[in-house]
Amino acid sequence: MDAEAKKKVLRMINYGLYVLSAKQDAQVAAATVNWLSQASFNPPLVMVGLKKDSQTYQVVLKSMHFTVNVLGKEQKNIAQDFFKPSTVEGSKINGHAFAPSGSGGAVLDEAPSWFECKVTDIIDRGDHAVVVAEVIEAKVIRDEPPMFMRDTGWFYGG
Amino acid sequence: MDAEAKKKVLRMINYGLYVLSAKQDAQVAAATVNWLSQASFNPPLVMVGLKKDSQTYQVVLKSMHFTVNVLGKEQKNIAQDFFKPSTVEGSKINGHAFAPSGSGGAVLDEAPSWFECKVTDIIDRGDHAVVVAEVIEAKVIRDEPPMFMRDTGWFYGG
Repeated sequence: MDAEAKKKVLRMINYGLYVLSAKQDAQVAAATVNWLSQASFNPPLVMVGLKKDSQTYQVVLKSMHFTVNVLGKEQKNIAQDFFKPSTVEGSKINGHAFAPSGSGGAVLDEAPSWFECKVTDIIDRGDHAVVVAEVIEAKVIRDEPPMFMRDTGWFYGG
Repeated sequence: MDAEAKKKVLRMINYGLYVLSAKQDAQVAAATVNWLSQASFNPPLVMVGLKKDSQTYQVVLKSMHFTVNVLGKEQKNIAQDFFKPSTVEGSKINGHAFAPSGSGGAVLDEAPSWFECKVTDIIDRGDHAVVVAEVIEAKVIRDEPPMFMRDTGWFYGG
């Protein structure tokens, strides 16, 4: 296989951008992710690729729950702030106001919509784990077109 | 959980559109899919949600290989043609010229790029299976911006 072709074709896959968060006791972690897709209507499942050596994945492994904040078209700055390790100060995580969701992680005040999931299966084969989870809660705060990763000029894939 | 909110928020996830194909002996099947994402850099894995009662999934289960044709921005007509069951006539599948890839399925002549995968894991939990597969071949025929599902006005999710 031609490594350049592999990189190029895998970068043709289109993504949105999301801040995925989990909490366990006092620990809250959150990270920007793009490898996320629905995976079943009934039950409503999603699948997400999580970096195995990330803080967020370690917390997901403990709590087996997570929250996905869907980012709006103009929220590139939020995506950028969650490339960094998670730091909670008062009611802010990485500088953004949040509230904890039920058993998931941080719900960002600025997120136009979010959903919470309960992990059902994990495939631990590559440098990212495939985490399959059932959607157990969902909220739409306001109608806002979601972000396309391609519009940001960033790539995570290849 | 509010079913309307769940539907709305899951439809905020952004996707591309792809024709996924598999073959086993003389049988070639292909279907339009959007629940597809990379899932690891090393090894290069993808994850895809395949409808369990579809012909294409049945062939994937037998061959444990598939090919993903990445559709370009202007190829909505091709996506539409693979919503239908697969019909092969001569060197055409659903009216589109193709060649078989190594151990995968149909490579469409019109596809700007494609990659071939070997299945490594399957999670059979919902109405779609989560199929995880390693990318073993990749070709870029021409540079062409990929299709956004959102631009088509179609949704498959919610």
